[in-house]
Amino acid sequence: MYDITKRRSIRKYSDREVSNQLLHSLLQRAEQTQTMGNLQLYSVIVTRSDEKKKELAPAHFCQPMVEGARVVLTFCADYNRCTEWCLNRKAHPGYDNLLSFLNAATDALLYCQTFCHLAEEAGLGLCFLGTTIYNAQQIIDTLQLPKLVMPVATITLGWPDEEAPVSDRLSLQAIIHEETYKPYTPADIDQYYTAKEQLEENRRFVEINGTETLAQIFTDIRYKGDDCKAISESLIATLKLQGFL
Amino acid sequence: MYDITKRRSIRKYSDREVSNQLLHSLLQRAEQTQTMGNLQLYSVIVTRSDEKKKELAPAHFCQPMVEGARVVLTFCADYNRCTEWCLNRKAHPGYDNLLSFLNAATDALLYCQTFCHLAEEAGLGLCFLGTTIYNAQQIIDTLQLPKLVMPVATITLGWPDEEAPVSDRLSLQAIIHEETYKPYTPADIDQYYTAKEQLEENRRFVEINGTETLAQIFTDIRYKGDDCKAISESLIATLKLQGFL
Repeated sequence: MYDITKRRSIRKYSDREVSNQLLHSLLQRAEQTQTMGNLQLYSVIVTRSDEKKKELAPAHFCQPMVEGARVVLTFCADYNRCTEWCLNRKAHPGYDNLLSFLNAATDALLYCQTFCHLAEEAGLGLCFLGTTIYNAQQIIDTLQLPKLVMPVATITLGWPDEEAPVSDRLSLQAIIHEETYKPYTPADIDQYYTAKEQLEENRRFVEINGTETLAQIFTDIRYKGDDCKAISESLIATLKLQGFL
Repeated sequence: MYDITKRRSIRKYSDREVSNQLLHSLLQRAEQTQTMGNLQLYSVIVTRSDEKKKELAPAHFCQPMVEGARVVLTFCADYNRCTEWCLNRKAHPGYDNLLSFLNAATDALLYCQTFCHLAEEAGLGLCFLGTTIYNAQQIIDTLQLPKLVMPVATITLGWPDEEAPVSDRLSLQAIIHEETYKPYTPADIDQYYTAKEQLEENRRFVEINGTETLAQIFTDIRYKGDDCKAISESLIATLKLQGFL
């Protein structure tokens, strides 16, 4: 039986096919996820062709999972279909704004996560690519997404061909707050993050990267403030082009 | 065994307690959800007190589930904890931008949905309140959320005290696209939406609301364009106050 406490991302996949029958069954069952006003403000683009995987790869910083996976799924916030429905039904939609984008993104992400859960229960392995919104415009061009459609998540999918380790997580105490948010004191930070910092793999990670602390790997190498600012600017430009801002 | 094709939102709950032991076990197991750079950019505020439920209710348009549920969970995009960690570790974080908000919101929503799945598997009933971002500022004030923390989802939770019907969904064909996005023609819209429009409950819904079409209920009553625009403005103001814009 599937045990979520053992779940881990899978980045290497076997040659075994992921049939359309299985894929469609999982995508369809996931549709029972809650959705705003039962509008289902999402679409999924299924990429199976080598050509399209190759085109998508640079948008995901050429991580090898994109070309190595049997299937790549791009989950999109989609107000286009709903808008078309309205326009065909004498209704006047006004969903070209940030609230509507966030509502559709929420629908798409919840749907995506139910799909992930069902796929993993079925024995498939997957990796969630957080890179989707970093180069959204490239993905939009490749998948020919119209206005009011914005990619928000990408899943690479296949049958596992590796025994990946389970990642550590913060203690529950670190992420829950009773009744009101309790500010984190320096002592709290020490309590919650020391175990992570002392993991053998993280100590090696710090050594290889030549930083003084693990946190510096994130701020100075992986997710630099200047990069985040620049990408935010292009993200805003893309949201405008897609009609959401 | 839990069958997702039978899932439905539950809005009426019995008096039976939801123990902290069960709640914490579910929240902890859900932590195995994928998360950006293993940073876990989310927090959960647990509301059990009648006083806080009463304060939260207006932010959710006084839907009775908020005061009627044993537990209310507010899932937040949280870059504050990570930022505090960095500041305590000689690192210089720069996560006061839209990209970082969307990364944290994604983390929070994926985590939330895994929790929902586990809670429903355990027999609990829940309702996802999409209203969270409509009156985010009120929620921020009530739960005392600091900068770089933004509520993105609310779950009301309890043991079911109703037999709610399963909602219809669009056919899978309506939401998937092979290789590239296929624009919806008027014939597609008819094909995908007619069944929904002809459901007895939706025909009655149109009659009660005095509209000509089902779509008009959404555009003219439930999610009016002018309202979406106005709420988008206050959402932008709140994101600025929380330090994400």
